[in-house]
Amino acid sequence: MTTPLRLGIAGLGTVGVGVIKILHQKANLLAERTGRPIEIVAVSARSKGKDRGVSLDGYAWEDDPVALAKRDDIDVFVELMGGDSGPAKDATEAALASGKDVVTANKALLAHHGQNLAEIAEASNHVIRFEAAVAGGIPVIKALTEGLAGNDITRVMGVMNGTCNYILTRMENAGLTYEEAFAEADGLGYLEADPNLDVGGIDAGHKLALLAAIAYGTQPDFDAVELEGIGSITIEDIRQAADMGYKIKLLGVAQMTGRGLEQRMSPCLVPATSPLGQLEGGTNMVVLEGDHVGQIVLRGAGAGEGPTASAVLGDIMDIARGIRISTFGQPAAGLTKARAARAAIAAPYYLRMELHDKPGALAKIATQLGEAGISIDRMRQYGHNAGAAPVLIVTHKTTRNAVEDALKGFDRTGVVATKPVVIRIETVE
Amino acid sequence: MTTPLRLGIAGLGTVGVGVIKILHQKANLLAERTGRPIEIVAVSARSKGKDRGVSLDGYAWEDDPVALAKRDDIDVFVELMGGDSGPAKDATEAALASGKDVVTANKALLAHHGQNLAEIAEASNHVIRFEAAVAGGIPVIKALTEGLAGNDITRVMGVMNGTCNYILTRMENAGLTYEEAFAEADGLGYLEADPNLDVGGIDAGHKLALLAAIAYGTQPDFDAVELEGIGSITIEDIRQAADMGYKIKLLGVAQMTGRGLEQRMSPCLVPATSPLGQLEGGTNMVVLEGDHVGQIVLRGAGAGEGPTASAVLGDIMDIARGIRISTFGQPAAGLTKARAARAAIAAPYYLRMELHDKPGALAKIATQLGEAGISIDRMRQYGHNAGAAPVLIVTHKTTRNAVEDALKGFDRTGVVATKPVVIRIETVE
Repeated sequence: MTTPLRLGIAGLGTVGVGVIKILHQKANLLAERTGRPIEIVAVSARSKGKDRGVSLDGYAWEDDPVALAKRDDIDVFVELMGGDSGPAKDATEAALASGKDVVTANKALLAHHGQNLAEIAEASNHVIRFEAAVAGGIPVIKALTEGLAGNDITRVMGVMNGTCNYILTRMENAGLTYEEAFAEADGLGYLEADPNLDVGGIDAGHKLALLAAIAYGTQPDFDAVELEGIGSITIEDIRQAADMGYKIKLLGVAQMTGRGLEQRMSPCLVPATSPLGQLEGGTNMVVLEGDHVGQIVLRGAGAGEGPTASAVLGDIMDIARGIRISTFGQPAAGLTKARAARAAIAAPYYLRMELHDKPGALAKIATQLGEAGISIDRMRQYGHNAGAAPVLIVTHKTTRNAVEDALKGFDRTGVVATKPVVIRIETVE
Repeated sequence: MTTPLRLGIAGLGTVGVGVIKILHQKANLLAERTGRPIEIVAVSARSKGKDRGVSLDGYAWEDDPVALAKRDDIDVFVELMGGDSGPAKDATEAALASGKDVVTANKALLAHHGQNLAEIAEASNHVIRFEAAVAGGIPVIKALTEGLAGNDITRVMGVMNGTCNYILTRMENAGLTYEEAFAEADGLGYLEADPNLDVGGIDAGHKLALLAAIAYGTQPDFDAVELEGIGSITIEDIRQAADMGYKIKLLGVAQMTGRGLEQRMSPCLVPATSPLGQLEGGTNMVVLEGDHVGQIVLRGAGAGEGPTASAVLGDIMDIARGIRISTFGQPAAGLTKARAARAAIAAPYYLRMELHDKPGALAKIATQLGEAGISIDRMRQYGHNAGAAPVLIVTHKTTRNAVEDALKGFDRTGVVATKPVVIRIETVE
């Protein structure tokens, strides 16, 4: 056996404790697989005295994660604190500056500062691995960076926030309103302290920015992700979508276009029979499309102690095995700064609104669509509320800009009673 | 740039040509990602003059793959000839003996000789990579060996022969008989020269043996795989299964039990709503279950030029990046020789047969099941053929041995008109 790989773990929440448990349980198995013992040397967390259900005997304690990161007796700094700045960032920088490799589950940190951190790491030949930052236990970073490395990636898609998918699934299957499903998820402890990280699409947007950087050889650019949360989705939309053979998902899509890199995290309609459409509850799914490999679908738990700790262990074992890969799959210096393309890719759209119950109202809407250059695939008026007629339109492929033009035209007609709901239909098998 | 990684490619069929095309198209991208140019130095195939639609200019030609494998000017021997013995085996051994790494798509070779080849490779610190051997473009070897390395694997399952899944899907969706669907697949060129490799489960069995070796740290042991093909599946079974919410798949399952390693490749009923049940056509799916990660599902094309070449490139790029992993995920010397467990794991079973239309026939069958210790979940007699009554039984969990006992008992009753169809129901979400 060669010398042990020595870890310093900062952050002893669910995931940190999960990692320690695995290292306690199966030290021998891990050493057989990597050819090298893996040992925890030191840990750091906010509260030293807290009972975490796992023994910390034999590990040095550091109150300050930066001090942990700088210790001479660790090889790998395992950052499980979270946060896109503050201690997590300081400690990660300190670890890299003092010659450590870094394993992290911190999507926010890397989505905001990934380029800079990758440059720092690579300047001293150290690595940053972050499998646990995206889609929990699913080894998607590895699949994309290594397994599909021979491909030009043509599209990356993902349902990567289990809480949002849980809420949407409950609305569909139990007929709950958004507010009811949200409250249920909250009661189950599924929501972040700031729920907008989940339902606003921010958490999933962080993950998408990391996947896009690897897929397209670009600097991670979270600020360029078009974000739209699930808060405006109604049961009515879910039902109408289902009637037409679709499900509504908070879907991330990253695609390189002739006009730049498009990154979207927004509710989308996807065919009910597609793997994305069939995904229920808190499970995550990532779809990778490459020019040679075609479509690869990866599905699994996107959060939780076991799955996330599994991903952290995978990264640690890679390092123990001597696997050293550039943070985003190629040297950080070579990552291009992509121009952000917004709404460059055409798609069919789902539109739902209520019209004042006046003669010719529907014709006026149809006319506005025509003037915006949008052709209609399906259009129907259904039921009647008091004085207002609900109308559903599915367009043929068009651009978001054309849809915005049409919406302005709708306003001018004076027949639209409610703000139209607009949801993109993502074409996917 | 460091020195190039030099390849010798043996076998210029669909996959070999696909690999050459990718290396022609995107040499720069691959070098950016790996930090190292990847170059083809020499090739070998049966017929030198054949037009393969790709230029071989600048590559040395070897008629003899063994001579190619021994060349001093290659670093990696890429074996894409196929066959579990003969030239593929000779050339692979020659490559390892002369200090080359090996990338192969040859499942049969590794399923039969993997242990010996891994020992030879590791004795001289060389690697054998075989992502393309299992499930085509899906990076499942990588996911299992590296991504999930922190887990004890509790079950590996896979639909890994696209031709069989195509045949079963066509029977279900188009109402074709097995013979009709087989003829259709044959006409489309989906079948191996020896169709029993496909429909007899042998090809998929090879793949299962490789996954099991990695999952459980055991020597690959294809001879211990219980094989049962799809030739006896009828439309009637597919319809009855569908009525009860199941699909029939040629499913591989590997599990470590208290009595040894169980490896089965056989038709199984799986819930229609599970990812396995939803898999249609020629697509492959592998389900990996680990003690921490839970269930990971991987789906993609299991064959074809692009997907298989993508997997070969992934392995080549790993080697270019300096990734060096033991063939089956831990040193070959440490792989245990598993005891083969047959039918150790209990499951519900689906039984279908026709009974002579005599009073008490059904009761006699039920009695035999009871005497074999099998309790009945569902039992029904449906329709009536001339003089014979079709009967369908779904048991509660029982062992294959108990089912065999019951079948012997059925024989003694004299009321069974046809050989009972017996299909295991795999419990999976």
